[in-house]
Amino acid sequence: MTEQEILEGIKNQNPQVLAKTMSLFESQKDSDKKLAAKILHQIEKDDYPTRVLGITGTPGVGKSTFLNGFVDSLVQRGNKVAILTIDPSSEKTGGSILGDKTRMTDLIKHENVFIRPSASRAMLGGVSANTRDLITLCEAASFDYIFVESVGIGQSEVQLAKIVDFLLLFLAPGGGDDLQGIKKGVLEFTDLLIVNKKDLGKTLALQTASLYGQSLENEPCVISALEKEGFEKVQQQIDSFYEKEDLAKIRFEKRKDFFWTRVESDVIQLIHKLKASDKLNKVLEKYLAKKYDLRKAIRKILKFI
Amino acid sequence: MTEQEILEGIKNQNPQVLAKTMSLFESQKDSDKKLAAKILHQIEKDDYPTRVLGITGTPGVGKSTFLNGFVDSLVQRGNKVAILTIDPSSEKTGGSILGDKTRMTDLIKHENVFIRPSASRAMLGGVSANTRDLITLCEAASFDYIFVESVGIGQSEVQLAKIVDFLLLFLAPGGGDDLQGIKKGVLEFTDLLIVNKKDLGKTLALQTASLYGQSLENEPCVISALEKEGFEKVQQQIDSFYEKEDLAKIRFEKRKDFFWTRVESDVIQLIHKLKASDKLNKVLEKYLAKKYDLRKAIRKILKFI
Repeated sequence: MTEQEILEGIKNQNPQVLAKTMSLFESQKDSDKKLAAKILHQIEKDDYPTRVLGITGTPGVGKSTFLNGFVDSLVQRGNKVAILTIDPSSEKTGGSILGDKTRMTDLIKHENVFIRPSASRAMLGGVSANTRDLITLCEAASFDYIFVESVGIGQSEVQLAKIVDFLLLFLAPGGGDDLQGIKKGVLEFTDLLIVNKKDLGKTLALQTASLYGQSLENEPCVISALEKEGFEKVQQQIDSFYEKEDLAKIRFEKRKDFFWTRVESDVIQLIHKLKASDKLNKVLEKYLAKKYDLRKAIRKILKFI
Repeated sequence: MTEQEILEGIKNQNPQVLAKTMSLFESQKDSDKKLAAKILHQIEKDDYPTRVLGITGTPGVGKSTFLNGFVDSLVQRGNKVAILTIDPSSEKTGGSILGDKTRMTDLIKHENVFIRPSASRAMLGGVSANTRDLITLCEAASFDYIFVESVGIGQSEVQLAKIVDFLLLFLAPGGGDDLQGIKKGVLEFTDLLIVNKKDLGKTLALQTASLYGQSLENEPCVISALEKEGFEKVQQQIDSFYEKEDLAKIRFEKRKDFFWTRVESDVIQLIHKLKASDKLNKVLEKYLAKKYDLRKAIRKILKFI
């Protein structure tokens, strides 16, 4: 495909072109990277009307169940929705651990829903520079909503917050002291707290919401994703965010911040490539043979980057 | 302290010197880094008799309770034990989330137990190059056992496995499909699986052990850390590992592998420092103003590293 064909296809929401462009963005080939950068340069802007929402929370908290029901109601109201799921990868095999199949079975049939699982290989904290590019692509293709779902706790949420407009953190009712410690870190980046599984015990769910929600600007939502209860409240909070905030400004600041994540990610990819080179392995050998100390060895390596 | 004083103090297990040297290793000052590299160069070797064990598992699974009891029995038998806990840090504040206090209250009083919490700030996957250096220091100070405890799931375990001899993964009985996906990634790097909380239900604990233990070489241990039950089995597995394996070879390979993590970590620290520089910010501004595409901007940045 030529640059022009790709740009046309994106504009016309051609699903084949979208899928091919996503593969182009993920490619490690130098010519592909060059073309991808050209396309991104043309479509990247901070004022697309698309709503870009992040979904995070520990495994099993009900993120997929929520998406399955919530996105269904969005589509019923005429919206086009893209779902980008970030799949933790195995470092040893390089393959995906969870597999490609998503658990959002009801959504796969919808023609206005586009689901793309992307492996988190070679990334910092689970979210890749590539995920940011896929968002831009879906914005340019005029999706109304983009959901980026990330599995895991800790570092990955920090990166996720940088690439979405609005971050939804899912909690289950309860949770020990240990868990709280980690959640507090994530809470700093959370826009909306959602306590799911109200069906398992309303009192505990409300307690959890009030305990963790204290420090947040927006009132937490207590829902039951399973029983599709509480979705309107979530929708209201999202609507209210998009009505009152200066979106282009928020996005510009986040893009600026995320630029450094891209630089880090590129440098790490570069190091991975260089590992195989003779020159660098000679430095490593000298360190292992105690001819260089660590500092000297690393300095030598940095010269090659 | 001079280099000579530090080396003497380590050899004599002087606790003040050890604590000061750890602070030296954590220092970001260039002169401190230089001295730290010199000291490490002299004490780093692959055949210390110290046993270096990694402890990992999701929050609340009972890692601290296990350590509290297990280390107590090691100390009763005359061992000197160091515990390095990795503390998830908050990116925004730079401070520690869990705080310095450990929950291993019984151990703090022991004179033969040395506990050091280290924040995971500015690291890849929770484990820092610094943690590896603290291990080397404790080896040189003739500790019999070093436990490195890491909170979290996913990427951090991969790094942890590279700096310890033997990785213990803690699971609770049960666990959903979601959770299994992540655990499978960690299982690749696990030496011994420990299913804790047998007291909550023996049958489910045994099922969990057999389900997750299939792919592992060593037989899983089902224990109750709370009731100090099953500790001998864990000790036997550890003993057997150290009796049969070529430790120096394993450690050499891991050190080689971890070298690249050090390089990545150093480069990222470098980028963090450079962020503040005018030259780099000019490049960023040109990218934001659409004068450079992303690829060109990153290339320009890389020239300054």
